[in-house]
Amino acid sequence: MAANNIPYKIYLSENEIPKQWYNLNAAMKDKHDPFLNPATGKPCTKDDLRAVFCDDCIDQELNFTDLYIDIPEGIRDFYRMYRPAPLVRAYCLEKALGTPAEIYYKFEGNNTSGSHKLNSAAAQAYYAKKQGLKSITTETGAGQWGTALSMASAFYGLDLTVYMVKVSSEQKPYRKEVMRTYGAQVVPSPSDTTNAGRKILQEFPGTGGSLGCAISEAVEKAVTSDSCRYVLGSVLDHVVLHQSVIGLEAKAALDKYGVEIDTVIGCVGGGSNFGGLIAPFMGDKIAGKNDIDFIGVEPASCPSLTRGKYVYDFCDSAKTTPLARMYTLGCGFMPSASHAGGLRYHGMSPIVSKLYHDGYMRAVAVEQTKVFEAAEYFARTEGILPAPESSHAILAAIDEAIACKKTGQKKKILFGLTGTGYFDMAAYKQYNDGTMTDSIPSDADLAKGFASIPDIPQNK
Amino acid sequence: MAANNIPYKIYLSENEIPKQWYNLNAAMKDKHDPFLNPATGKPCTKDDLRAVFCDDCIDQELNFTDLYIDIPEGIRDFYRMYRPAPLVRAYCLEKALGTPAEIYYKFEGNNTSGSHKLNSAAAQAYYAKKQGLKSITTETGAGQWGTALSMASAFYGLDLTVYMVKVSSEQKPYRKEVMRTYGAQVVPSPSDTTNAGRKILQEFPGTGGSLGCAISEAVEKAVTSDSCRYVLGSVLDHVVLHQSVIGLEAKAALDKYGVEIDTVIGCVGGGSNFGGLIAPFMGDKIAGKNDIDFIGVEPASCPSLTRGKYVYDFCDSAKTTPLARMYTLGCGFMPSASHAGGLRYHGMSPIVSKLYHDGYMRAVAVEQTKVFEAAEYFARTEGILPAPESSHAILAAIDEAIACKKTGQKKKILFGLTGTGYFDMAAYKQYNDGTMTDSIPSDADLAKGFASIPDIPQNK
Repeated sequence: MAANNIPYKIYLSENEIPKQWYNLNAAMKDKHDPFLNPATGKPCTKDDLRAVFCDDCIDQELNFTDLYIDIPEGIRDFYRMYRPAPLVRAYCLEKALGTPAEIYYKFEGNNTSGSHKLNSAAAQAYYAKKQGLKSITTETGAGQWGTALSMASAFYGLDLTVYMVKVSSEQKPYRKEVMRTYGAQVVPSPSDTTNAGRKILQEFPGTGGSLGCAISEAVEKAVTSDSCRYVLGSVLDHVVLHQSVIGLEAKAALDKYGVEIDTVIGCVGGGSNFGGLIAPFMGDKIAGKNDIDFIGVEPASCPSLTRGKYVYDFCDSAKTTPLARMYTLGCGFMPSASHAGGLRYHGMSPIVSKLYHDGYMRAVAVEQTKVFEAAEYFARTEGILPAPESSHAILAAIDEAIACKKTGQKKKILFGLTGTGYFDMAAYKQYNDGTMTDSIPSDADLAKGFASIPDIPQNK
Repeated sequence: MAANNIPYKIYLSENEIPKQWYNLNAAMKDKHDPFLNPATGKPCTKDDLRAVFCDDCIDQELNFTDLYIDIPEGIRDFYRMYRPAPLVRAYCLEKALGTPAEIYYKFEGNNTSGSHKLNSAAAQAYYAKKQGLKSITTETGAGQWGTALSMASAFYGLDLTVYMVKVSSEQKPYRKEVMRTYGAQVVPSPSDTTNAGRKILQEFPGTGGSLGCAISEAVEKAVTSDSCRYVLGSVLDHVVLHQSVIGLEAKAALDKYGVEIDTVIGCVGGGSNFGGLIAPFMGDKIAGKNDIDFIGVEPASCPSLTRGKYVYDFCDSAKTTPLARMYTLGCGFMPSASHAGGLRYHGMSPIVSKLYHDGYMRAVAVEQTKVFEAAEYFARTEGILPAPESSHAILAAIDEAIACKKTGQKKKILFGLTGTGYFDMAAYKQYNDGTMTDSIPSDADLAKGFASIPDIPQNK
């Protein structure tokens, strides 16, 4: 093994942790449509967002001109605790598949949050501290984002309140304990601590909650306090920006060994890990410097890219956020219970949506049982037990590598291994027990979701 | 931060993964007393052990002459999947403590087994495969060892049966699922698959099982099949040998930056991680080349070194194994429920016992609530959520660093961070809830344990 002198794991040195993020918005010739203020129907201004988000994040959100944006040393201090993340050559997987393809994956799971989420959590907590805020708040479903933000808040000395979907907090009590260990206050949502929560509790006593409700509670907490802001783990442009460290490190590692990638694969939920992974590669493609095949992999149970509409929609099911033009199944779409909690989002990052719409990438939708089959195969050959979300990318990478076996092509494939599945063993148990099922929405299910898309002039 | 140009994490290159293990038995001028066959009272021969253990492991177990023993390439192939493990400079912890000491830790938790156990699991599975065996078997309590062996068995293509203490398999269902995902058969013990299990079930219907019983079942499975052997995760000399990769990598990383360590700290349960961490440093101390302060940290609830006797005892509570001269609380000692499952062992590695007896190291016993306090502090400052076992070493390292603050000494402290606590969140929950208690055995408790020590001539 280890031909071409490429090691199993390429580690950059700590000095090679990126000093700047890569801003895809600046690289894109055609920009995505602006966020709209739902009250006015006009593009959001910075002032529209100030009560909710941190100032620096707003500046980044609306920056379409600077291709590179400096990463403050205070954030790089945090990044040094768990970065650079390794780029792994999947020798064992290649051998097991008998493929002529070269497979690489960027592994973001070697930290206690277990995922790439920490890259943006660190940045957003840093900017909140820099602004003089005392606390931040967010919602979490599966728990990866809440865990990451707990770690970052502990590091920067911020109080953190996480509204955790009640049914999740009961099903995943250990995720909650990780957050508590880092000092976060975890509030099962709906709660009686906010108007939004009290209203839901009154209407639906005993409800298990929803992500939409948890977002509403967190945003309410933020806008009703001068010293608190709301932070979000995906979808938004500044989150994609922060996640560009994934792609920048991957590209630097590949450049060291002169590897020119043919295919880049990532799972897509809100789109931030995918956007971050592809960022510098996609920038080069837009500039005509490569012809990489970019593949976003989504669950067939929540197929926003492959079956959604490219229209303006709310980012949350409670219809409290600005409107984004994106591929969406409708903010009222209820995906069936799927274990890849991080991919159960009705919409898609506006950046990724625009790139898909303009033909710079393609998307595939895959079924959950096949995803877990790939996850198990990967665990046994490469050692790492992957997160269900990440395993969507594994499945697509394996499919590509098997195709190469038939054609004899020696494609160089890169995929994003966003995290580990250590807190997802209930889902693995279903797979091991043979009780896992797939669930693909019918056209009627989709029609119900589309009916929730706001009827505004821009959507005509 | 990052003075002296020492990075946060020192990664060796893959070529620097040790090519040979370091055999402490050869380095020690005074050897530990031999294992005894309990039937004859005479030193164990290789033939005594052949029905139970793999041939190569037996050779290593009884090798007191070769200071270095080659690591086969087939094992290094596996090591490359997750090694070299980083040596971390704990800048953030130093800063938080305000200590003049330099703190380093060797982190063995960045793999799916979550601990150092994989180092010996890989070796033992490799040797079983090399011998032409079809299957191996073992017992597991907390589950780290069973997980590690599942990964190694999947890699080398061996069938694995893990006898998991029934109460553990019920309390830690997710550990079981990780093993199943790697293809292991996990049998709650006692089971009706062995004579030993059936006997216990008949005597104690509905029992939750014990490690002693699980060992008996696994050994029975091994000795009743020509193509199966039993493998053990700690205590024995060949396990300490395999774990020497920890110390060898740590020393190589420190040597690169010219760091001469003053203090080496590790947690001690069976003793294999500690023996492996200290191996090359201790060899140099025995040869008069350094004067390092070695500290083994054990739980006050199971204080084999600090309160045990240095006598011959059985390695298991079912009294089926050879007799080892070691520090022991008696093979019948029942430690109270402590969450550091990996440290609840009545005895101690004969190598570590001998070094302690001869004054080459010291030992401290610490209480569980203080251990979790240190664990939480470490998680919040260094990011990594540590295993309860590893946190014993963290506590002692923090105590040493605080002492340096008082004396102004700039000691260089190395400790072993053996693993992560992601599957130990029930214990963290107790700590977070404030319901965790300490439990220190009374002299009467100890006397009961000592009464189970065999009454043989060598113990007079």
